[in-house]
Amino acid sequence: MVNKLAERIQELEAPIVVGLDPMLSYVPGNIIKEAYESKGENLEGAAEAIWQYNKGIIDAIYDLVPAVKPQIAMYEQFGIEGMKAYVKTLDYAKEKGLIVIGDVKRGDIGSTSTAYATGHLGKTEIAGNEFRGFNEDFITVNPYLGSDGILPFIEVCKQENKGLFILVKTSNPSSGEFQDRLIDGRPLYELVGEKVAEWGELFMGSNYSYIGAVVGATYPEIGKVLRKLMPKTFILVPGYGAQGGKAEDLKHYFNKDGLGAIVNSSRGIIAAYKQPQYESYGELAYADASRQAVLDMKEDLMKAWKK
Amino acid sequence: MVNKLAERIQELEAPIVVGLDPMLSYVPGNIIKEAYESKGENLEGAAEAIWQYNKGIIDAIYDLVPAVKPQIAMYEQFGIEGMKAYVKTLDYAKEKGLIVIGDVKRGDIGSTSTAYATGHLGKTEIAGNEFRGFNEDFITVNPYLGSDGILPFIEVCKQENKGLFILVKTSNPSSGEFQDRLIDGRPLYELVGEKVAEWGELFMGSNYSYIGAVVGATYPEIGKVLRKLMPKTFILVPGYGAQGGKAEDLKHYFNKDGLGAIVNSSRGIIAAYKQPQYESYGELAYADASRQAVLDMKEDLMKAWKK
Repeated sequence: MVNKLAERIQELEAPIVVGLDPMLSYVPGNIIKEAYESKGENLEGAAEAIWQYNKGIIDAIYDLVPAVKPQIAMYEQFGIEGMKAYVKTLDYAKEKGLIVIGDVKRGDIGSTSTAYATGHLGKTEIAGNEFRGFNEDFITVNPYLGSDGILPFIEVCKQENKGLFILVKTSNPSSGEFQDRLIDGRPLYELVGEKVAEWGELFMGSNYSYIGAVVGATYPEIGKVLRKLMPKTFILVPGYGAQGGKAEDLKHYFNKDGLGAIVNSSRGIIAAYKQPQYESYGELAYADASRQAVLDMKEDLMKAWKK
Repeated sequence: MVNKLAERIQELEAPIVVGLDPMLSYVPGNIIKEAYESKGENLEGAAEAIWQYNKGIIDAIYDLVPAVKPQIAMYEQFGIEGMKAYVKTLDYAKEKGLIVIGDVKRGDIGSTSTAYATGHLGKTEIAGNEFRGFNEDFITVNPYLGSDGILPFIEVCKQENKGLFILVKTSNPSSGEFQDRLIDGRPLYELVGEKVAEWGELFMGSNYSYIGAVVGATYPEIGKVLRKLMPKTFILVPGYGAQGGKAEDLKHYFNKDGLGAIVNSSRGIIAAYKQPQYESYGELAYADASRQAVLDMKEDLMKAWKK
């Protein structure tokens, strides 16, 4: 799957993942109205609105980008009905040929990590038959619990040819509270990065490992250091656009082969029609605005990429 | 909710939480058979088996302990059907007067943390009406992303009179890989513990904060240090029993008032009938074995508690 990711990035010349992190407030009025009329003014109706909104975006962008990254929290907030919309979104994106990175940030130990890995990446056996729960291609994972938390995920990745992106340095302002603290003179994120590179050796693709890392766009100097520390690690880069990360800052996240990183944009693309730059599209053409925002992001990134 | 937790612990003289972390392999054959016959040999059937098994355990122990802690991964592995079993388990436990700690170990930033908090602890507004997704009383949260990840959860806790248990030092063998690393001569878990105490000040109950900590039973010396560092923090203690934590080791997790900690046991209680000590119950009486295991754990802990 990491090979497919690298190939698709090259084919499309787009190291871009679209974050499907819908808020109800992003969804155009006509979609909301129809969803409430068909499913009710309740969790089911809200989930239906989210799903229809996602479908429009996927239809508009699936030929431009290799991957989408649904943020499960945005679905989980609507309970079971939201989780169903998450599954529909995953399945539809895969039908359209997109690689799906589930931004689930799970993390636990031993058999509990195995259960998460089984649910999201693997299959479970029931009375001799195999069934899948959520079925993403990659998921994000939290490293705080150490190897006991990560290795069970890697086992399932190996069985399924799927991958992980492990949090190393997150994009938020307070990420330094723990991640930047110095240990023997080096910040914690470097130690975590080294571990990710080490875990990555356990499951290599052609040039890159199936075990990737998350490093925020908002800390370009740190991105540069981590790029060198984890040469075979694919880096998922959140924080571009809405959070303040600039294309120019991103060039150090890529290797000389032009690969090794994939940049996420969520709000900046899925709610493009709400920004001054794209407001002329209007809410009925929200998906067209998203398509244009992807094209503009691609152009913007080109400045950083292949330099 | 933290006041209720403290009261119930005192009333029942049981600082015990039963971990509802079911595996299909724990479920007695007759329950499996009935579930598959009624719902099919599929995810729905497996989830039904898990739910019926949980129901039997809750019925057998609800008058003995203040709280249960379902581990969401064990449900998530069965996809949407598993999540429905999770909700049924939460709702039934609450109906029976139990406090429910959702062991979800979520963690993200900003609006994403708010979405998790809304889904699990809060309510969401749809067309002017309020709806709840999962509705636990407490959830566990991962601190790796810093304050940006935690504060949105605390906001929702304040609105709902609910609480958190934030991972500080986990019970697993490799927890030290990052958590024990020295920063200015002090391990990371102490820094996290200090932050938890600081966050705890933002939402205090009568004597304890609504913002608790997770500290594994398997590191009693660390428990002693963290108890002093976080005097008003309720500590959720995993790792007793199956993972090797002994009652004698636990006394330092409690304050002089006999409160301040609640000890989790999962396998040791819910799969008691599979242990030599309780195997005479047989699988049909699995819930009675669980009840006896709770009574025995209570007695065992008394040695440590109130000393």
